Amino acid sequence: MDEPFAPKTGLIVGVGPGLSAALARRLSRAGVRLVLAAREIGKLEELCAETGAEAVTCDATDREMVEALFRTVDDHLGPLDLCVYNAGLRLRGPVPELDPAAVERALAVNAFGAFLVAQQAVRRMLPRGRGCLLFTGATASLEGRAHSAPFAMGKFALRGLAQALARELHPQGVHVVHLVIDGRIRRPGEGPGEPPDSTLDPADVAETAWHLVSQPRSAWSDEIVLRPWVEPF
Amino acid sequence: MDEPFAPKTGLIVGVGPGLSAALARRLSRAGVRLVLAAREIGKLEELCAETGAEAVTCDATDREMVEALFRTVDDHLGPLDLCVYNAGLRLRGPVPELDPAAVERALAVNAFGAFLVAQQAVRRMLPRGRGCLLFTGATASLEGRAHSAPFAMGKFALRGLAQALARELHPQGVHVVHLVIDGRIRRPGEGPGEPPDSTLDPADVAETAWHLVSQPRSAWSDEIVLRPWVEPF
Amino acid sequence: MDEPFAPKTGLIVGVGPGLSAALARRLSRAGVRLVLAAREIGKLEELCAETGAEAVTCDATDREMVEALFRTVDDHLGPLDLCVYNAGLRLRGPVPELDPAAVERALAVNAFGAFLVAQQAVRRMLPRGRGCLLFTGATASLEGRAHSAPFAMGKFALRGLAQALARELHPQGVHVVHLVIDGRIRRPGEGPGEPPDSTLDPADVAETAWHLVSQPRSAWSDEIVLRPWVEPF
Amino acid sequence: MDEPFAPKTGLIVGVGPGLSAALARRLSRAGVRLVLAAREIGKLEELCAETGAEAVTCDATDREMVEALFRTVDDHLGPLDLCVYNAGLRLRGPVPELDPAAVERALAVNAFGAFLVAQQAVRRMLPRGRGCLLFTGATASLEGRAHSAPFAMGKFALRGLAQALARELHPQGVHVVHLVIDGRIRRPGEGPGEPPDSTLDPADVAETAWHLVSQPRSAWSDEIVLRPWVEPF
Repeated sequence: MDEPFAPKTGLIVGVGPGLSAALARRLSRAGVRLVLAAREIGKLEELCAETGAEAVTCDATDREMVEALFRTVDDHLGPLDLCVYNAGLRLRGPVPELDPAAVERALAVNAFGAFLVAQQAVRRMLPRGRGCLLFTGATASLEGRAHSAPFAMGKFALRGLAQALARELHPQGVHVVHLVIDGRIRRPGEGPGEPPDSTLDPADVAETAWHLVSQPRSAWSDEIVLRPWVEPF
Repeated sequence: MDEPFAPKTGLIVGVGPGLSAALARRLSRAGVRLVLAAREIGKLEELCAETGAEAVTCDATDREMVEALFRTVDDHLGPLDLCVYNAGLRLRGPVPELDPAAVERALAVNAFGAFLVAQQAVRRMLPRGRGCLLFTGATASLEGRAHSAPFAMGKFALRGLAQALARELHPQGVHVVHLVIDGRIRRPGEGPGEPPDSTLDPADVAETAWHLVSQPRSAWSDEIVLRPWVEPF
Repeated sequence: MDEPFAPKTGLIVGVGPGLSAALARRLSRAGVRLVLAAREIGKLEELCAETGAEAVTCDATDREMVEALFRTVDDHLGPLDLCVYNAGLRLRGPVPELDPAAVERALAVNAFGAFLVAQQAVRRMLPRGRGCLLFTGATASLEGRAHSAPFAMGKFALRGLAQALARELHPQGVHVVHLVIDGRIRRPGEGPGEPPDSTLDPADVAETAWHLVSQPRSAWSDEIVLRPWVEPF
Repeated sequence: MDEPFAPKTGLIVGVGPGLSAALARRLSRAGVRLVLAAREIGKLEELCAETGAEAVTCDATDREMVEALFRTVDDHLGPLDLCVYNAGLRLRGPVPELDPAAVERALAVNAFGAFLVAQQAVRRMLPRGRGCLLFTGATASLEGRAHSAPFAMGKFALRGLAQALARELHPQGVHVVHLVIDGRIRRPGEGPGEPPDSTLDPADVAETAWHLVSQPRSAWSDEIVLRPWVEPF
């Protein structure tokens, strides 16, 4: 068996109480030192205390804030091994009624911010010939549905970015993973649902994310879809 | 056989000398009265003369210009039957070297502009329960490739928009077609290539586009891919 | 515009009263001389009278019968331009309850027969560097669903065959079309449904099939999906 | 975190020296008691000694042999938790030159045998509402390529089976995994290639297979693709 990839440093952009928090905990447990970025970091205090992470305020769609974020990463973590883009904006509605400004913002958060963050990460990873980029997708990454046009636009764009990055970066030693969540993630404190486990436990998602991040380069996956056992598809 | 759809009025956004010009000619031949929109309409004089079309200056990423364009369409054509979004911006390069502002612009032209135009068209078509939206895709709509991240982002987003629109609008009587060009379109005056027909003849593409636009609602297609016989895929 | 493909001779394997009959009529109207093959040809009398076609008894899963069929085609039609494989066997049921012999038969009819027929056709078309193969798929070609395992196996296999043939034969001048019917085809004498056109009119499907068969080689499609406007997808 | 699935018994059908052997070792290491089936079991002696597995002679395309195999599984292992179908037959060649009997055999090994085995396994798993089916796919599962028609037919059919089973069985508690190997698996004793890890290490593939098998039901994947970092796709 080849050496699994064992990141020592990680950045998560777009941190809330759900999947990203579970991922931060899983990474921390594996010894990964973390920077967590969010538009509002007040809510991250507990998670930072628990994981030893540094929180940074950042709007991922703002080029200068992203550049500043990565300077903090450089200072705080040194060479970056793992970069997660988890920012997302779920905008829904019948097409005639959507607010164009909100649609533009959804494209920016779901897709353009991912490019800005990926570019900074890639510039740091390529010279070392190692690293991993993780993007989180949704049902809308795979299928455009009625009343979901703006979210589908953003998540499709993110998948296009992830595919292009995988084809460009894999032969240079940088692994790209598109993690598609096809179902509803259980909220903190929420029970397992009825029937049990009909919602995604974020810790379970984090476990699969960690497995893919750890894959040795002889057998990389660039995409995986996760859904509860009872989820129609 | 059911009644084919026979549009009487059409708008093409993003008109140049290639596919869009061939489509304008094909539509004109079928008796469709046209408005053609482009950022620079000086170059459209001949095409307008040939097809009787009205040319309108419009940057499709600018909400106010798009609204003004549709007021012109209302005045000039009356009820709109067919709306084609053909604007596109092909931006390529290794991810570390791309200019973020150019990437943002590519997303706007390839995807956000399509939303702005589609929304205006849909608002006019839904009350009548009829109409057709046509979007032009590319190889990058289907596959993100190395050095093609920004174009893949935009074209994936456009496909997500087209799929969401198809699922939302088909049951309301409005047909959505995503026409994917998987190869290089022959330039005006260019020969058929070697081997012959190794590039796409825009008139041939326009013929298939017209067939799909004309489909009766008992048997609609929402996507088709076209490529030359010798094109690898 | 390049020369459209104008077949003069055609074979349809798997002829019943639905899509294949509509296709025979459409081809006949375009001047194509036809051989129609089915396991029981008694029912084809009227269609043969109408289209001038010759009917041949053939079980497409039987190698010798397929070879005999093509000898009849050689004698009756001369060089074959178009070959349609429309035989299919829709077998459904929960996996634990399916009869293995029936599953084996479904694979044979939906997929192996298509190979036998395609091979004979290709041997005749390749030396001339022209011809078209048309295969008819179904919703199960795109998605394996509960209680549909055997049909999905057969229709997926058929799609794999069509893709491999397209990549192998297109650069040699032979066009391959996979026509996917994603909905229910209207039966002879059946009305348009409620809402109107909620089932596929076979004449409309035949019209799109004919368009794809006719495409000039500068702009070929290898697959198209057709569904009624109100069909969920 | 939910309870991961921890199979105690396993059957692998189609065992050779590559992926299946690595998987047997990985399962054995996790405490899974095994039956290994192959057409010729002479070559399995060492692997059985190493893993404590029982070897059974079985042609997976033969209904009676498959039924007998499962009676042995019942006797030897008791309730079956995990069933792996790894039998495959890679048949290639230009379509005009293929031997129809060989094509029929390829369909039987790649697809029909998988149905026979899956049916027996499902009949045992459904009453307990738990279990996992694992199928191994290849590049040809995703794309039909020139000279690969029969292999694509078989592997597409297998994917159709896996998808239908996933949709049918997931809500009944049985997990289905389609593991797609998109590259060449390293042979026993073969070095890591040049550049290193340009072939798939079977132990790495087995590790990801084990991860998916172990997924708790709140977050199941039904498909994953694995390829070496330098593999074009």
